[in-house]
Amino acid sequence: MNGHGEEELVFEIGVVVPKRAAIKGDEHYDAVDLLVDEFKKTGLVVEIVPGLAEEFIKLAAPLETLKKAAAKLQLKKPTHIGLDLPFEWDQSEAFVRQNDGSLFSWCERHRCYQCLLRGIENKSKSAMVLKFDGKEFFWEPWESLLQRLESEGIVKLVFPLHDEIKRKQLLRSWALKWWGFTKQPIDDVYLYFGTKIAMYFAFLEMYTRWLFFPAALSILLQLVDFGSLQFLVLPLFFVIVISWAVFFFQFWKRKNFALLTRWKISYTIGTGPGFKILGMEWAPQKHPIELSNKLESVNIKEKRVYQRDEWYGRIMRFRNDAIIILSIICLQLPLELAYAHLYEIIVSGVMKFGLTAIYVLVIQFFTKIGGKISVNLIKDEKIENTEYRADSLIYKVFGLYFMQTYIGVFYHALLHRNIKTLRQVLIQRLIVSEVFDNVLENSLPYLKYSYKKHKAVRNKKKCEKGPWKGKIQFASRVEKEYLKPGYSASIGDELEDGLFDDFLELALQFGLIMMFACAFPLAFAFTAVNNVMEIRTDALKLLAMLKRPVPRAAATIGAWLNIFQFLIVLSICTNCALLVCFYDAEGNWKIEPGLAAILVIEHVLLLIKFGFSRLVPEEPAWVRANRLKNVTHAQDVYSKQLLRSISENGKKIE
Amino acid sequence: MNGHGEEELVFEIGVVVPKRAAIKGDEHYDAVDLLVDEFKKTGLVVEIVPGLAEEFIKLAAPLETLKKAAAKLQLKKPTHIGLDLPFEWDQSEAFVRQNDGSLFSWCERHRCYQCLLRGIENKSKSAMVLKFDGKEFFWEPWESLLQRLESEGIVKLVFPLHDEIKRKQLLRSWALKWWGFTKQPIDDVYLYFGTKIAMYFAFLEMYTRWLFFPAALSILLQLVDFGSLQFLVLPLFFVIVISWAVFFFQFWKRKNFALLTRWKISYTIGTGPGFKILGMEWAPQKHPIELSNKLESVNIKEKRVYQRDEWYGRIMRFRNDAIIILSIICLQLPLELAYAHLYEIIVSGVMKFGLTAIYVLVIQFFTKIGGKISVNLIKDEKIENTEYRADSLIYKVFGLYFMQTYIGVFYHALLHRNIKTLRQVLIQRLIVSEVFDNVLENSLPYLKYSYKKHKAVRNKKKCEKGPWKGKIQFASRVEKEYLKPGYSASIGDELEDGLFDDFLELALQFGLIMMFACAFPLAFAFTAVNNVMEIRTDALKLLAMLKRPVPRAAATIGAWLNIFQFLIVLSICTNCALLVCFYDAEGNWKIEPGLAAILVIEHVLLLIKFGFSRLVPEEPAWVRANRLKNVTHAQDVYSKQLLRSISENGKKIE
Repeated sequence: MNGHGEEELVFEIGVVVPKRAAIKGDEHYDAVDLLVDEFKKTGLVVEIVPGLAEEFIKLAAPLETLKKAAAKLQLKKPTHIGLDLPFEWDQSEAFVRQNDGSLFSWCERHRCYQCLLRGIENKSKSAMVLKFDGKEFFWEPWESLLQRLESEGIVKLVFPLHDEIKRKQLLRSWALKWWGFTKQPIDDVYLYFGTKIAMYFAFLEMYTRWLFFPAALSILLQLVDFGSLQFLVLPLFFVIVISWAVFFFQFWKRKNFALLTRWKISYTIGTGPGFKILGMEWAPQKHPIELSNKLESVNIKEKRVYQRDEWYGRIMRFRNDAIIILSIICLQLPLELAYAHLYEIIVSGVMKFGLTAIYVLVIQFFTKIGGKISVNLIKDEKIENTEYRADSLIYKVFGLYFMQTYIGVFYHALLHRNIKTLRQVLIQRLIVSEVFDNVLENSLPYLKYSYKKHKAVRNKKKCEKGPWKGKIQFASRVEKEYLKPGYSASIGDELEDGLFDDFLELALQFGLIMMFACAFPLAFAFTAVNNVMEIRTDALKLLAMLKRPVPRAAATIGAWLNIFQFLIVLSICTNCALLVCFYDAEGNWKIEPGLAAILVIEHVLLLIKFGFSRLVPEEPAWVRANRLKNVTHAQDVYSKQLLRSISENGKKIE
Repeated sequence: MNGHGEEELVFEIGVVVPKRAAIKGDEHYDAVDLLVDEFKKTGLVVEIVPGLAEEFIKLAAPLETLKKAAAKLQLKKPTHIGLDLPFEWDQSEAFVRQNDGSLFSWCERHRCYQCLLRGIENKSKSAMVLKFDGKEFFWEPWESLLQRLESEGIVKLVFPLHDEIKRKQLLRSWALKWWGFTKQPIDDVYLYFGTKIAMYFAFLEMYTRWLFFPAALSILLQLVDFGSLQFLVLPLFFVIVISWAVFFFQFWKRKNFALLTRWKISYTIGTGPGFKILGMEWAPQKHPIELSNKLESVNIKEKRVYQRDEWYGRIMRFRNDAIIILSIICLQLPLELAYAHLYEIIVSGVMKFGLTAIYVLVIQFFTKIGGKISVNLIKDEKIENTEYRADSLIYKVFGLYFMQTYIGVFYHALLHRNIKTLRQVLIQRLIVSEVFDNVLENSLPYLKYSYKKHKAVRNKKKCEKGPWKGKIQFASRVEKEYLKPGYSASIGDELEDGLFDDFLELALQFGLIMMFACAFPLAFAFTAVNNVMEIRTDALKLLAMLKRPVPRAAATIGAWLNIFQFLIVLSICTNCALLVCFYDAEGNWKIEPGLAAILVIEHVLLLIKFGFSRLVPEEPAWVRANRLKNVTHAQDVYSKQLLRSISENGKKIE
């Protein structure tokens, strides 16, 4: 994994255009030719690979080109003095290098590529006439060429390419290293896939390692008979498991910080809604108002605007959450309950199967609709940062999945008070979901890929029937990658990528084992084994089955951390209820309604106490804006001087 | 409140030395004369005021002298670009000025004075012989003159002086403005007393304002009869009051940030133990290991040392907390319960009085011992920052006071289940404590002052009997101030000042009204009225009754915020218990022991869930050190360049 771009060039971006007719008159200036020329002009190295039905333009950027793009983007990078400063072309000495010695991380390189590709504009004053396949269209002044071609349907896709050498290395050292148990080359994963995905695998690794402890304990409980103390075993297990979970997440947060430091990612500790750690803010800091030029604090009028903005956003978010929660309770809950109830009542196996089929269809539809509604609702929330928006969506969509997964189980647990059925249901769900998911996760992309490949070959054959009937060449790597499915979420959303599914799987699994820990301790052992496999299958999926994902810069696991924390609190309550069911087999533990009401009030108030601080941030928006404004201003004005002196200093030390 | 030190000089520090015998031979170099000369040499303006038995050296520092001291101290100050940089003598344009136009805040000036006073050292290579009142002693090379004189008993006290003009202004606009209700000139208070005291008054103001709402509600409850819905009133009041408290503290945190921004105090949002906001770190950032010169990240060995250090400190703290908690439970709890029980049993009024007298004596003794033990324990905890140490002490000592104040009330509430007696006890405690405290707070200092004055005059008379028997002159302001008591905590501690008592009063009062909200709603009205008075009496105490306190730089109310939050959680539980008592007058709400055990487990686990994050910080010490090291290094290396450019830029804009 050595220095990128300095010794050897790696093609990292692919652009897909339709295959042009064999030979054309040179009379027209071909749009694709122009695109290739422009790519070359911006300093990119271009390689054109013909495919079956498409042509692939592979792009690589030499370091100098990347530097220019980074300087144009004013990419904030950590410097040797701990401040993040905008990149300057000639002061690269001042910036911290990646652990493999390269100047830019994959996230940063991807941003630079985007900037280079989108930055090709018509610099002349008049519109240019472009032709492609006989079609003519205009390229307006200052319009991005790539955008124009995309809207004309000529550029079909721009996607990151796998780096074959590193991919094979990772396959050997990571995805296929089955005997490695939970051990992973996380640093290499970070260099290859970027922060967010590496964070997922680091979390999965630590989670699995920590899982071994309750797993061992649960096996012990299963094997040993504690005699007269047996009645103490379950409550004790419950207490240990909850403490374990609380410890785990606190130590995960520490691990997260340690990883960020190791990967040389600078972070600020903020008080955002539900966040402790904010990642680098990629998007340029936008203020509702133009930055005033005076170096003064935010004045009263600005303060008002900020406050209005803050509260408006907050109220909108509250409204949206209320809509989602209400619709889940009013629409989804009855559906789920009806299904659970009907499933219990119906005796015939065929009927059960039919019912489940209908249910699955309805719920698929419901989830899709829910996702769409959530995406639309979020647009009102005025969140600028993409990662925040993604998190806001996760909370909303998780509600849907939560109901789907657990309502049936709750139904068994609390209404039937039938522990044996509950255990059966849990085993069923765990095994089915885990085996099913793992198999599906890898086979589905492969099937998709095979189908696409088959279709492409058939099309080719159809087109060229006659001339040569031999085996069709299908060797170009880039075409294979193009045919592989992308790393996208099953809710098919624009805001999240495939990590949503992976985290969702983990969260639902975590909820299942934690919330019903007392009913079925052995679930921990199942899960530990499953997660060891999950690490490798997920790695394999990313490396072999899918297109290389677009890197994301988020520095934490974001909303999922809060969801896990919420599941812990919930599991405290559900396990208590389970314990009551267990020890009250005769049903003579009556609780007066008055007392019950008081207990409910208590729990609601505790929820308010600990939940409210997430609703209203501690640092008012105008204060935060003021702070950031000053810092931004400082960096704008003094960054050049600072950079020069840092890099000089760096040279001296060397 | 205009620019300090630029137009007029104000004497801000007083040094007390004994009065010298009338005339002395000039043969010896008098130590006090030397001190005065040295003060003059460092650039301070000196005025000597003779008193009855002492001589007072009043000191004022012109701006240039302060600047020199600040540069020597490398005082970190906020600059116009949002970074805190060490002060440079010739770049004062670059730094943010206070709202009254002065360059240094009172906290900063006080630090400069300390630096100037303590910085007078024997620069010659040999020890100097000093004489005072016939006594001879040596001033060793590089020894601080003030320290030498203090240890010889010649310098009796160094204390901050009131600024007569501003004090009178504040008396008019703040302490004596009774019709102002909760309105206070907080900004002026900040300029005069520094951050910590201003924060206390800002908190008191906001708390009192917010109190009006539950106070009005409680009066409404008292006056209106809700008929058949009466049974809903108390639970509703309970829910409203808890939500009110949760809201209040969240909004207080916001207010805190807003105040810091208004006062131009820079802050970092950290993850210290139990803190959200860290103030300026006054103490220079000390690392366990010397800063390595290389601009690299913390290496593995350093990381280990940090981790060991972090965990050692944490374990020591845990041990200390355990010791304190155990001793409170094992020693204090039985004592308190015994007192409460005996008080109930005894019928005779005289016996009761005697018992209470003994109890008060014992508990005074107990608290003193507890305070001493806590201070000693804290020394092991290796906390460098003074404010953190103060906070660690507050937690420990609050435990003692908590037991003292509430155990008796709990005894009534939960064991006797006698609501009427409980109400009586509450009224008694509230009125007695509030009236008593307010009266005592102002009269005690005045009595102390009068006694000291009387003694001084008598001594004087005794000494000079014969010569002139007329009225003794007692006009010098500085002598009066010297005789006034200092602003110190009643536990008589080195770590905290009088704010401990003031906050303790607020916290105990808050606990009393919140924890027994259901038993006695009217307490809120009592407290609101009391707090309106409290604002003025506290102000009066600070301005008229006491010496000017030494300013402290803490940017938040620190440990008290966590104590208030803890009291809210506790009051959720106690109020639930109270409600059960109320609605179960016949005592037929039986709860099975099994169920009770499960409920206890649940509460303990919820406590673990929400308490554990305070025990283990999210950001590991080595990561934090790494971050700070980089920043510190940056500021050391580049601050001069930066400052020059900032101040040039500032001039251009002007």
